[in-house]
Amino acid sequence: MAKVNRQIRLAARPLGFPKESDFEMVELPVPEPGEGEVLTRTLFLSIDPYMRGRMNDTKSYSTPVPIGGVMVGRTIGEVVASRDSGFAAGDIVVSFGNWQEYALIRGKTLRKLDPVLAPVSTALGVLGMPGHTAYVGLLDIGQPQPGETVVVSAASGAVGSLVGQIAKIKGCRVVGIAGGDAKCRYVVDELGFDACVDHREADFGAALARACPRGVDVNFENVGGAVLQAVWPLLNDFARVVVCGLIAHYNDNTPSRSPDLRSVLIKRLTVRGFIITDHNARLDDFLRDVSAWLREGRIKYREDIVDGLEHAPEAFIGLLHGRNFGKLIVRVAP
Amino acid sequence: MAKVNRQIRLAARPLGFPKESDFEMVELPVPEPGEGEVLTRTLFLSIDPYMRGRMNDTKSYSTPVPIGGVMVGRTIGEVVASRDSGFAAGDIVVSFGNWQEYALIRGKTLRKLDPVLAPVSTALGVLGMPGHTAYVGLLDIGQPQPGETVVVSAASGAVGSLVGQIAKIKGCRVVGIAGGDAKCRYVVDELGFDACVDHREADFGAALARACPRGVDVNFENVGGAVLQAVWPLLNDFARVVVCGLIAHYNDNTPSRSPDLRSVLIKRLTVRGFIITDHNARLDDFLRDVSAWLREGRIKYREDIVDGLEHAPEAFIGLLHGRNFGKLIVRVAP
Repeated sequence: MAKVNRQIRLAARPLGFPKESDFEMVELPVPEPGEGEVLTRTLFLSIDPYMRGRMNDTKSYSTPVPIGGVMVGRTIGEVVASRDSGFAAGDIVVSFGNWQEYALIRGKTLRKLDPVLAPVSTALGVLGMPGHTAYVGLLDIGQPQPGETVVVSAASGAVGSLVGQIAKIKGCRVVGIAGGDAKCRYVVDELGFDACVDHREADFGAALARACPRGVDVNFENVGGAVLQAVWPLLNDFARVVVCGLIAHYNDNTPSRSPDLRSVLIKRLTVRGFIITDHNARLDDFLRDVSAWLREGRIKYREDIVDGLEHAPEAFIGLLHGRNFGKLIVRVAP
Repeated sequence: MAKVNRQIRLAARPLGFPKESDFEMVELPVPEPGEGEVLTRTLFLSIDPYMRGRMNDTKSYSTPVPIGGVMVGRTIGEVVASRDSGFAAGDIVVSFGNWQEYALIRGKTLRKLDPVLAPVSTALGVLGMPGHTAYVGLLDIGQPQPGETVVVSAASGAVGSLVGQIAKIKGCRVVGIAGGDAKCRYVVDELGFDACVDHREADFGAALARACPRGVDVNFENVGGAVLQAVWPLLNDFARVVVCGLIAHYNDNTPSRSPDLRSVLIKRLTVRGFIITDHNARLDDFLRDVSAWLREGRIKYREDIVDGLEHAPEAFIGLLHGRNFGKLIVRVAP
């Protein structure tokens, strides 16, 4: 093959918010698969907040991307050549293909998709890692009961939008927090949340309190910072704080202190962090339930698709500023 | 009855550490029991950290003591007169008799003690609320597994000493934190902890790290503040932080911020507060297990007994400074 594989690598470790110069694009020959390997052409690349953590050289739950290494990411790919008998050219697969146009992947790490069941891009969103995150985080960590109030930040995002819709299915009052009027209207009018509060408004804290007249029983935290500070005083006794993401802090250079610990004691709160890769045992349950809810029209989703691998850095930086609207995906191959 | 009932009341709400002038002693006639009531003479009064919270006029999990109100507290009493057919003069009972020499109590709130089974003062300590707190907090909230490392602060105290001994019974490595060499030696030599670190030493953080070579899986937190800050970086993935008490903060006038929230996410921590009165369903299990361990000599306890109700304020203030050594009890009647 004489084709070129464009690849985006980490050029420098960002201090604070990443800049486009922290990434570099290189061109390489497209490789040939070895025994047990599959060559895929990337169709879609998922862009997610966790990627900011991989750019740091600090101990975390997974290995940092080395300087000069290709940026990591889940992809939907089409098999171009296969030396694994389980896959053939034309198969559509989901894998960690990373920020590049072609990826060599061991067959046993691939999952085949049936394009007839759902649009294949959903395997990066509502039927992928963000959906799995929402399902496990809400149901297993948050344990919402019918009639309880659930607050979810980044409510129009890939995770938050599903958290709120599942909480509605489970009989909760659901209040979203989002940035800007358009996202708030979408969350209420399209997704069916009971209310949504704009964290950019001057009276955000008071508006959130008005939207939660019976307090907050489950806080699904995707943001942290000022958003969490506003939720904190509204927490009821025995409330659960699901720490799923802290995007407000990913670009901090200082520790992110959490709110008053005495409240944890007095209100008997549970504050619990989770990482979805620890919860693969719930993957089948998630796929079964959310697929059914999608078919029944009880779950909606929204994708924010950016064309061209070269725009991935800009799209990722925008995500960290809340500029996307829905699950952010880069369409790598037209 | 012409006898006098001496009673200690809250005279003023403390700012920061309480002073003796925040309390006042008054003398009243000993009252007569009405229908369904029992008059008890107080033998022992339990002095506990939670009492500091009751002196504040802020929303908490229970009602503040009003200015001029008698200070609350659990007591062991002897029935002097009874108009409840379930109790007779001479019975020994545990109840909320408060900081006074005689108490009128509704019979249905009393629990009778058998002085033959165990010294009656143990119903305020190892077989009372502190013991129940240790049992539920460690086993139900902390969920220690054999081989895990458990750290407990205020390790020589009523709760901490039992937490560590139960954790040893459950097969854990147990590291105590206590103030001063005498307490640390007691915790290791008498109670059988694997190690104990003095939080007053200059190299406390480093010493704690050396005592926990495999990190910390359960942190049973009785103190907060600098003690918790030292434990925090040692927490392993999936560690549980049991927030039982925050005595370092009870005299703060500002919120007590907890350590880095990002660690909660990255390490998948569970930080959970609890109040023992929510866990009465486990009272029988606690009494059964801890009574058996006491009989078998697997559990030891230590009481710090102060004579005379008039010394209760001083003893309580000393407790908040860590001056007691073992379960602090005031012997009210000789």
